[in-house]
Amino acid sequence: MSTTWTWPDAPAAAPQEDELRRMHAWWRAANYLSVGQIYLMDNPLLREPLRPEHVKPRLLGHWGTTPGLTFLYAHANRAIRQRGLKAMYITGPGHGGPGLVAATYLEGTYSEIYPAVSRDLEGLRRLCTQFSFPGGIPSHVAPETPGSIHEGGELGYSLSHAYGAMLDRPDEIALTVVGDGEAETGPLATAWHSNKFTNPQTDGVVLPILHLNGYKIANPTLLARIPEPELAELMRGYGHTPLFFTGGFDDEDPLEIHRRFAAVLDEALDSIAAIKRQAAEDARAGRESERPAWPMIVLRTPKGWTGPEEIDGKRTEGSWRSHQVPLASARDTPEHLADLDAWLRSYRPEELFDEHGALREEIAGTAPEGRLRMSANPATNGGELLQALRLPDFRDYGIDVPSPGAVQAEPTRVLGTWLRDVIARNPETFRIFGPDETASNRLQAVYEETDKQWAAQLEPHDREEHLGRRGRVMEVLSEHQCQGWLEGYLLTGRHGLFSSYEAFIHIVDSMVNQHAKWLKVTNEIGWRRPIASLNYLLSSHVWRQDHNGFSHQDPGFIDHMVNKKAEIVRVYLPPDTNTLLSTMDHCLRSRQYVNVVVAGKQPGPSWLGIDEAITHCTRGLGIWEWAGTETPGSDPDLVLACAGDIPTVETLAAAKILREELPDLAVRVVNVVDLMRLQEDAEHPHGLSLRDFDGIFGTDVPVVFAYHGYPWLIHRLAYRHDRGGRIHVRGYTEEGTTTTPFDMLMRNDADRFHLVMDVIDRVPQLGSRAAGLRQRMADARIRARAHAYTHGEDLPEISGWTWDENADAAAGGADETGGDNV
Amino acid sequence: MSTTWTWPDAPAAAPQEDELRRMHAWWRAANYLSVGQIYLMDNPLLREPLRPEHVKPRLLGHWGTTPGLTFLYAHANRAIRQRGLKAMYITGPGHGGPGLVAATYLEGTYSEIYPAVSRDLEGLRRLCTQFSFPGGIPSHVAPETPGSIHEGGELGYSLSHAYGAMLDRPDEIALTVVGDGEAETGPLATAWHSNKFTNPQTDGVVLPILHLNGYKIANPTLLARIPEPELAELMRGYGHTPLFFTGGFDDEDPLEIHRRFAAVLDEALDSIAAIKRQAAEDARAGRESERPAWPMIVLRTPKGWTGPEEIDGKRTEGSWRSHQVPLASARDTPEHLADLDAWLRSYRPEELFDEHGALREEIAGTAPEGRLRMSANPATNGGELLQALRLPDFRDYGIDVPSPGAVQAEPTRVLGTWLRDVIARNPETFRIFGPDETASNRLQAVYEETDKQWAAQLEPHDREEHLGRRGRVMEVLSEHQCQGWLEGYLLTGRHGLFSSYEAFIHIVDSMVNQHAKWLKVTNEIGWRRPIASLNYLLSSHVWRQDHNGFSHQDPGFIDHMVNKKAEIVRVYLPPDTNTLLSTMDHCLRSRQYVNVVVAGKQPGPSWLGIDEAITHCTRGLGIWEWAGTETPGSDPDLVLACAGDIPTVETLAAAKILREELPDLAVRVVNVVDLMRLQEDAEHPHGLSLRDFDGIFGTDVPVVFAYHGYPWLIHRLAYRHDRGGRIHVRGYTEEGTTTTPFDMLMRNDADRFHLVMDVIDRVPQLGSRAAGLRQRMADARIRARAHAYTHGEDLPEISGWTWDENADAAAGGADETGGDNV
Repeated sequence: MSTTWTWPDAPAAAPQEDELRRMHAWWRAANYLSVGQIYLMDNPLLREPLRPEHVKPRLLGHWGTTPGLTFLYAHANRAIRQRGLKAMYITGPGHGGPGLVAATYLEGTYSEIYPAVSRDLEGLRRLCTQFSFPGGIPSHVAPETPGSIHEGGELGYSLSHAYGAMLDRPDEIALTVVGDGEAETGPLATAWHSNKFTNPQTDGVVLPILHLNGYKIANPTLLARIPEPELAELMRGYGHTPLFFTGGFDDEDPLEIHRRFAAVLDEALDSIAAIKRQAAEDARAGRESERPAWPMIVLRTPKGWTGPEEIDGKRTEGSWRSHQVPLASARDTPEHLADLDAWLRSYRPEELFDEHGALREEIAGTAPEGRLRMSANPATNGGELLQALRLPDFRDYGIDVPSPGAVQAEPTRVLGTWLRDVIARNPETFRIFGPDETASNRLQAVYEETDKQWAAQLEPHDREEHLGRRGRVMEVLSEHQCQGWLEGYLLTGRHGLFSSYEAFIHIVDSMVNQHAKWLKVTNEIGWRRPIASLNYLLSSHVWRQDHNGFSHQDPGFIDHMVNKKAEIVRVYLPPDTNTLLSTMDHCLRSRQYVNVVVAGKQPGPSWLGIDEAITHCTRGLGIWEWAGTETPGSDPDLVLACAGDIPTVETLAAAKILREELPDLAVRVVNVVDLMRLQEDAEHPHGLSLRDFDGIFGTDVPVVFAYHGYPWLIHRLAYRHDRGGRIHVRGYTEEGTTTTPFDMLMRNDADRFHLVMDVIDRVPQLGSRAAGLRQRMADARIRARAHAYTHGEDLPEISGWTWDENADAAAGGADETGGDNV
Repeated sequence: MSTTWTWPDAPAAAPQEDELRRMHAWWRAANYLSVGQIYLMDNPLLREPLRPEHVKPRLLGHWGTTPGLTFLYAHANRAIRQRGLKAMYITGPGHGGPGLVAATYLEGTYSEIYPAVSRDLEGLRRLCTQFSFPGGIPSHVAPETPGSIHEGGELGYSLSHAYGAMLDRPDEIALTVVGDGEAETGPLATAWHSNKFTNPQTDGVVLPILHLNGYKIANPTLLARIPEPELAELMRGYGHTPLFFTGGFDDEDPLEIHRRFAAVLDEALDSIAAIKRQAAEDARAGRESERPAWPMIVLRTPKGWTGPEEIDGKRTEGSWRSHQVPLASARDTPEHLADLDAWLRSYRPEELFDEHGALREEIAGTAPEGRLRMSANPATNGGELLQALRLPDFRDYGIDVPSPGAVQAEPTRVLGTWLRDVIARNPETFRIFGPDETASNRLQAVYEETDKQWAAQLEPHDREEHLGRRGRVMEVLSEHQCQGWLEGYLLTGRHGLFSSYEAFIHIVDSMVNQHAKWLKVTNEIGWRRPIASLNYLLSSHVWRQDHNGFSHQDPGFIDHMVNKKAEIVRVYLPPDTNTLLSTMDHCLRSRQYVNVVVAGKQPGPSWLGIDEAITHCTRGLGIWEWAGTETPGSDPDLVLACAGDIPTVETLAAAKILREELPDLAVRVVNVVDLMRLQEDAEHPHGLSLRDFDGIFGTDVPVVFAYHGYPWLIHRLAYRHDRGGRIHVRGYTEEGTTTTPFDMLMRNDADRFHLVMDVIDRVPQLGSRAAGLRQRMADARIRARAHAYTHGEDLPEISGWTWDENADAAAGGADETGGDNV
């Protein structure tokens, strides 16, 4: 072991009075511009008397959290300059957007990216007007804000984003403000434990600053209202060494406040430097480092600090009333206008900006320069750093499929061998995240190459279980943490995969909403470079939750995702092992998407050889001629379509029954891998034209579609192409429990026998032979159920079944199955 | 103040050896039956040699957590008997189903509810066979399990369910097992803070037992791998007094283990009794009680305790390998069969059951009797206790609407006055839950009657903010906590309302999935009585997130909910104040549903008087004749339909433009309150027949439908009735940011001008006048946007607009709007 990094280890000199004075000026400037952004649409430096028409007609934004954010920013800047830290700033209370926009403007980054918002009077006017203004910028720390990887609109993810961003970035630090509102959320409450998953030798540092400004929208915050010793125990219990700071509640000299906080921040950073020194020493000595009690800071300041103390006789500074816009009638009442004027002038703008409207040089000099500015940290525009993965040729991992269905395999288990080698070739830029389900989802081959990273206590036998101090697999029983870490990792220019049970990925519905929004907006921002896609591998899916039953049966995440913008979302349902390999290779190469891949882990038939799989996946859907009975060149009587591994098995079983029992019926079998192909081409870039759709699904013939999830989604996707309502869909209709796999299919009328009945019902020209077959199918269902209920096992099996060898497993079973057992 | 309850205050006598011996026998019996359920389908008391055919062919279930659950259950029983506690048992690790089924069977409750599972040999055979067996019972602590209010399949909600269940139940206790896997989740991590919201005088007690068995599916658990002092600090930081117990890791005499744990449990219960004594004393003295440091227990035992120590040479007891079924090949290999036989016999079943297969009386006597059995606590079948709310007549709260649109009102603000009186009349059975948004959603009239309940520190000015030691409003910035508390409250027979921002209700997508599943299953269980519906009031919705922008704009929760079973889900979009009142009255009377109500909080036009509102809501949708231009008795040329408050405003504005500009066009206006009415009657109980649908929407005429959310949902719901594709839907297409309300509509092509353009595009017979109007509409959009971008405000306004008075606000605006401002 050795380290390729050095941690800046400058001595911590306490700031002198002159520096404190300039820092204070910088903070005043940031606060001034924050207030200016919320209120002003003209007269940005108050060089003329403030008049109503200078005030925006609609006052929108959040003042309360902002001065605390700018205070920290000013101090972070000093520390960066003094120590040469590579830092990013993660703003948990993202609605403090004006503060961050102000800070990045004062640093110059904003004007570099948006030249129209120049560092002069005209630029200041634009800066103020554009904020929360139609055609302008959002009120949050949005993708438009330089240096941001965290919008902070939905609260709770700052810490997991920060920890994800710092993985494999050992010489960097994320100064992470945790709002005390956000701190009440579940995801944030567990994210403190992220420090049990970080390695001081190989990962960067997260310095959490819990900002207790005491109030949310209309209530005090919990952590501000427990005794400080209790809060200290909580933080130590989370594995941190807390440092406490309180300021702003009395008439203390501002310079003294700055001096005291600089000392606290230095103490934290000195202790981090000591931890890093130890880590480097450990590395040189060839030993792993033990988990340190990382510092964190509790920063207690008034909400709306430096704002109006009272408005209309009601306490405002230090109260929830400063949460949004304290002087809501500034444009309409002379009193509020005068208050606003006084408030703005309290920052003494004339001392801060020169005659052209530029920040005075001695004040600007308190910020770092170039890439050390937190707003210019390249990792916060991760696409800039992104390198394509070195991917092993997935074709080498494909399984031989001499004929369709001749071979059984566990798709995710085979995928694991490829992922193992993806990890081997990309030892610092690819990680797998999961809630204790990587092995359960049968990706365990990855452990031939790597471990699960774990900084908590190790016991000797843990080595056998692939638990180590460093590793490319991150497992914690919190989907929120997995998602947050992965997002942070991707947003800073790396690659990853989230492997989860299908049902419980709903836990992060709202998080992926926000990530999809981020991607959507960044697509519209030129300077934001594309990042790697967020890849979900969902296994242990609805049809195979044998151990757990109903609570674990839910395929609705796909439905949730298709509401996102078409340019963001891709959904894949590879039916077997080789198609899964091809699909995942595609996903790991892609950019700016959310890819949802649903795949089985149980042994199941393999249908396509690797080359056929590539062709099929490239098309996204296709006709499986070998499975049907149609005459080439003419439309079939009927199409059996399927999407998903289990529905594919059932569809092929139904096709086989039909081939044997009704050989004159021209059946076409269509398999869909890429669900978005079902949409109209105008709706989705992967969509089909009507001509192509009809080319696949026939013109005006009935389609019996066996789908993995809720049937309605197929109707929704194919809506434009299915005006006649000819598509009949079977899928999961929310009928579940602990039972056998085939019984699960029967409960939802999605089994092979029912599919054959559906076909017969839709092709009226079939004669009495079909009527007899229909009756036999109904009988076969009764027998299959009776067998399961008596013997506790499936008849027929859905995974042991093969297309080639068990020639009579399906149709034969319909006649003979368990007749003596009922 | 006084208390209406007494807390049982029996002295805690340490158990004598004989009692310990009988408790140990009861525990062995529970473990024996747990193993029996997982493995056996016959020979339940091993009265003949164990043969392969006695073992189930598919072994499904979870052993690892089970012995810890039964251990606690046995000890809880002793404490209940000795103290006369009214207790319920909440099983965080719900997959420990066999343990709870075994315990309730041993108590007799199971056989009372399911007589076929009798307390004899035949009953034992059924008990074993049915578990995780097709046609039998699920593997989890499902609704089928007596005494359960918590399925525990999706981890993380045990504590919030427990705290919700104990609200307003001051003489009861919820013994709540928190699994150490579950403890890693976000929702659980924040749920520990529930103790800052509970009142010792008016609420019951939650005793959390953190069960550290050390392993999840394939990994150690976090909290088992931090030093015990750190864990103690964490628990104290959460506001608890932790008591630690470790047992089962060595050869300690089982009776000694029981004696030691009984002492720990007694210490916890004595300390609870002392807290309750103090609370009663405080109540007598007329003062509120301060938050105590409630006890909690850390119970460290081996995973798979008492199971096989090793299997195939691999450590099993005390390892993740005991998580599910340790002897997976018991039916197939003689070695595993022999191991299973030895394991079962290690519990010495012959000492536990009499010759008929009944639990021996002296052992059975260690459990409490009647309603004191945790499995027979009536609150765990909440519908049994449910009383209808005393609802004030909502008509008295309606606003006068002399003519449609003549009056502006804030719907949720008016609703607040009714809710205030609902609270007044139901002081112990109704609560409002929300993530700091009750006032933001403008329900603040409730504070005239009640406070927000808060057990953390109070400051003098908090009184003005309606923060108190007792109150009917529960606010914490965690949607997970709100949902969990409310579910616990409802499941134990009370009523409630969850008020939230629309976008962030997605945070509980997965939780409401589980609740909907619970309702669906209980509908099929005769002895489970119907409970009050789970009511969501979603405001601050997608169209009015002026302060926050894109991250706060998401109407997809409705889409999420419609995948649930039709008998469970109701979605309402009341367009104004009086319809909101009528809708909420209906929701608070309903049972076994999840009701989703989306309503505005901003001032907006009122369309219907209270009597018309009742009629309209009763129908669920209807024709607004006054808004259209059709000739009675004949089909219109076109239908303008709408659902949602803002789309209704835009639709009526469009109707007004059409009336004035194209008076010959016969337009019908349809408003939809109950979204489920759009479905086919075969799909949903509220659905319409095709005849009724056509009666409302005309036959074969175009429909331009302005919808609140993602447009696809309307297509999906109306799919069966819209074979011709005549419905054209406008809604939210994921285009959002911080901007004006009207610009939001324009970005999504859902504004009045665009609706008029849509109409013109769909009625080809319109002549040149329409072409001119279409051009004017397009121009109006450009002008409206230019005005917003220049002035920062809306033109036209969507909320200030009224139907009657501003006769030219819309069409006039199209001509004259801001022409000089562009």
